[in-house]
Amino acid sequence: MTTTRRRGRPRGESGSRGRIVTAAEHEFGENGYDGATIRAIAGRAGVDSALVHHYFGTKADLFAEVIGIPLRPDVDVPAILEGPRDQVGERVVRYVLEAFERPEVRRRGVTMIRVALGSKVMSPPLVGFLSRELIGRITARLDTPDAALRATLVASQIAGMLVTRYVAKLPPIADAPVEELVARVGPTLQRYLFD
Amino acid sequence: MTTTRRRGRPRGESGSRGRIVTAAEHEFGENGYDGATIRAIAGRAGVDSALVHHYFGTKADLFAEVIGIPLRPDVDVPAILEGPRDQVGERVVRYVLEAFERPEVRRRGVTMIRVALGSKVMSPPLVGFLSRELIGRITARLDTPDAALRATLVASQIAGMLVTRYVAKLPPIADAPVEELVARVGPTLQRYLFD
Repeated sequence: MTTTRRRGRPRGESGSRGRIVTAAEHEFGENGYDGATIRAIAGRAGVDSALVHHYFGTKADLFAEVIGIPLRPDVDVPAILEGPRDQVGERVVRYVLEAFERPEVRRRGVTMIRVALGSKVMSPPLVGFLSRELIGRITARLDTPDAALRATLVASQIAGMLVTRYVAKLPPIADAPVEELVARVGPTLQRYLFD
Repeated sequence: MTTTRRRGRPRGESGSRGRIVTAAEHEFGENGYDGATIRAIAGRAGVDSALVHHYFGTKADLFAEVIGIPLRPDVDVPAILEGPRDQVGERVVRYVLEAFERPEVRRRGVTMIRVALGSKVMSPPLVGFLSRELIGRITARLDTPDAALRATLVASQIAGMLVTRYVAKLPPIADAPVEELVARVGPTLQRYLFD
């Protein structure tokens, strides 16, 4: 009998990957997102830092893998901000909703929201990740003194839209067509960012 | 030795109140907010319906007691909607934030948000309560075909503001002065309701 291998990886590699993920969970949980380092995670897993980068990329990539984040707002949102300025709000809403309309993203996203709000261990690192990798990037692009507050106001409306539509399933926002919400919520984000 | 009595109620009354609360938890959990009736709760508790009303008032009052809701938006928000129309959004934000700045309300409110998002038993009744007693009342007052969607968009921004500020504690929205958020978020609610 042979052992079933996931994704056809050799067993040794799979063992290293698993140890790295476990080490990362502990490191992020104990030291937060900003305090965690790839070097410390590699040390806990008994591997070289280069192997962590080879398997998982950046610290943000590794964190996204560990927490099972279904979207990479840190990667996608800066690109969304680069397009025509007068429709940034609508593009952000459409990006988030079109992703969450996919069952796999929705399932993982709802879990992530519950973790973010309920887990005493993983909630602070997730907030740290969003502060650094998403809010920080938006803030850098806005170039106004109140940029960080503007970015978190956007986050508040997105979080509230996801919570009422996909977690609490409050009608009728739970059943509204994507484009209806793009038209209604988009101008809110536009105002928070630029007015 | 005497038994300590809470709030000085005679023991028999306290026992009835406790049985009514337990019966209500089961009734709301099994049949939802709309499906639950005072008559059925009284039957489960082995008391008369009049006693339930005497102790707890309406079904909404009883539900608020059972879930430990720290605010009564079903009671307060319709009054807020009655004032000058051009500042409704700001009044709603100020009402919610001034309440949550009080530690006791904040503590119970954060717990309620976690229950609302995490509990498979009490989440649907809470959504039912908000749909019927809050969204329904706002909708009745707005008198437009899309009133219910407008009301849930308001709920989405309020929920997101509470979640990012008080549960996730995402800076800088977590540290912003109340009047700063009144000025930024108020116009959003105003637009959702009336534009």
